Amino acid sequence: MKQLNSTALKVDQDRISILDQTRLPNQEIWLEIPDPDAMVGAIRRLSVRGAPLISIAACVSLALHAAKIESEGVSGDEFAINIRETAERLRESRPTAVNLMLALDRMVFRVAPESLSTAHLIATAERIFEDDLALCEAIATHGQQVIEDGDAILTHCNTGGLGTTGIGTAIGVIRKAHELGKRIHVYVDETRPLLQGGRLTTWELDRAGVPYTLICDNMAAGLMRDGKIQRAIVGADRVALNGDFANKTGTYSVAVLCDYHRVPFYCAAPFTTVDPECANGDTIPIELRDGDEVRGFAGTGLVWSPAECQVYNPAFDVTPGKLLTGLILDSGYYPSDAIEAGALTELFAPG
Amino acid sequence: MKQLNSTALKVDQDRISILDQTRLPNQEIWLEIPDPDAMVGAIRRLSVRGAPLISIAACVSLALHAAKIESEGVSGDEFAINIRETAERLRESRPTAVNLMLALDRMVFRVAPESLSTAHLIATAERIFEDDLALCEAIATHGQQVIEDGDAILTHCNTGGLGTTGIGTAIGVIRKAHELGKRIHVYVDETRPLLQGGRLTTWELDRAGVPYTLICDNMAAGLMRDGKIQRAIVGADRVALNGDFANKTGTYSVAVLCDYHRVPFYCAAPFTTVDPECANGDTIPIELRDGDEVRGFAGTGLVWSPAECQVYNPAFDVTPGKLLTGLILDSGYYPSDAIEAGALTELFAPG
Repeated sequence: MKQLNSTALKVDQDRISILDQTRLPNQEIWLEIPDPDAMVGAIRRLSVRGAPLISIAACVSLALHAAKIESEGVSGDEFAINIRETAERLRESRPTAVNLMLALDRMVFRVAPESLSTAHLIATAERIFEDDLALCEAIATHGQQVIEDGDAILTHCNTGGLGTTGIGTAIGVIRKAHELGKRIHVYVDETRPLLQGGRLTTWELDRAGVPYTLICDNMAAGLMRDGKIQRAIVGADRVALNGDFANKTGTYSVAVLCDYHRVPFYCAAPFTTVDPECANGDTIPIELRDGDEVRGFAGTGLVWSPAECQVYNPAFDVTPGKLLTGLILDSGYYPSDAIEAGALTELFAPG
Repeated sequence: MKQLNSTALKVDQDRISILDQTRLPNQEIWLEIPDPDAMVGAIRRLSVRGAPLISIAACVSLALHAAKIESEGVSGDEFAINIRETAERLRESRPTAVNLMLALDRMVFRVAPESLSTAHLIATAERIFEDDLALCEAIATHGQQVIEDGDAILTHCNTGGLGTTGIGTAIGVIRKAHELGKRIHVYVDETRPLLQGGRLTTWELDRAGVPYTLICDNMAAGLMRDGKIQRAIVGADRVALNGDFANKTGTYSVAVLCDYHRVPFYCAAPFTTVDPECANGDTIPIELRDGDEVRGFAGTGLVWSPAECQVYNPAFDVTPGKLLTGLILDSGYYPSDAIEAGALTELFAPG
């Protein structure tokens, strides 16, 4: 396989390494991921994360697995069955982000058995990896029409180079605005429980030199009332055809607060996040995660709440499309009324 | 001084002990607080906290200090000056909660110099301590008219026996409902950054046997949309005469989310939290605290965000009275329209 490099995922010959995102920003540790089952583990514990990146990581892992078993003499039906079963395990690692499912469809499940070769898997995985860079660039470019010089922008979770192979989705729009000389300031929601904002977005904005202020999630409302936030941009893990979308838990709260305070609210994502099978948000499955993530700070062993207390810990929530000012995709900018008129359905129209 | 006992503050002869609330729920450690300056430190680092309790703790500390300097032969002008200066230092320990200021007015600043005796200070401190029990009971009783059998109730921060000498304010209403056999369930906002919900309210509800579910602050909106929350009750650190009130950071966010989802939203507090000098919320000073509270989890030394990153960390925010469904005081229940018609101003009318 080609040498592939991004902020948090590298492929060199037959070796995949990921930057362990559970340890950032205090430690920058690269982990070698030897096989797809190790990748499933890395995805589940969020060592690799972000809807676009987990799909890409799963695909390169599957492609290298194919090369390995082929070199061991596995072929024919045995090869096809092994690849499909491995792809199933990767597909089930996280239920909400649809990029993973759609990428594995493209790799395996929508491929005729006779075409399911190592060459196809490697070429497709490489293309998915490299395409994501261009998707991020296109999102960042289309997003500029909604960012003005002087804006203070709220963002939630991490949607940057750690969750994609490019400059990111929502963070990509922000970074591009900064690169173009717009004087922007970012308010970073820390994003409980896993603190992707406090740990990862801060780390990325530091590296990119974009000025920001870290806040607790519950402080955004007061800043909006005080006129300190001009707009909000978030990413997505799955977008339905009517504009409803699943994203990191707390996104719906941001959307409601924006609506109340008349702050424009945008979602930025690649087309690989739009689920053509999903008419609206009601059918998006929401992953429930371990209560210790809320009882304390997962990964450190630190628990500050009673050890057995009952916890509700959805990893994502669904925001109704009607709360969006607009959706920024690689294919363009879709204002709320265009989505309502069927713009996302048209993306998938044949021809 | 009398022997005085509450969940987190005890007085035995000339010794004051506080339950160190920075260590709960994992460790129950009582600290002896030898003098008012040590009490200022304990208040600032939140070892003792909650608007009613810090005012009471400051008063007993000042009264015992008076007894001590009197026994050392300090008297006359020297005594009065010492007491006033000590009271000033206590008054400045935290700027937002008004109970502390009003209690010290009653103890010292509105007392004629010739009446400023150890006997007055001890009797007043004892009365303030003991009165708070009755205030909590009255709040809990008046609050029952807004709690129905089967309710799931959202609360924010800690407003229980750890923040008062009685059963609490908002938590007092909840505990009383449970004691009366109403089948209620509490959703506990963890309340970043200092996690008073996750650490303290959970601990109190466990001890009281009230069923609850711990959530991150950003999850409440989704629960409201799903119809899982019937009402929200919070406390206050200062209530203005028009119903605007300062409370733990994140309260304003809860209020907006309740308004959007048509969830009734209440504030419960003793009359000692209403500031007759304060016409509206604009003049309430908001304490800004150390950024490390947001960069990590204060008190543990754990910092998960970049060490030098810019942080906004207001300890409180102000919620407009118009977002209240009603205010529950010890003197009764005040629906929003009664407050608008001047009900709080009338509380302070002479005669």
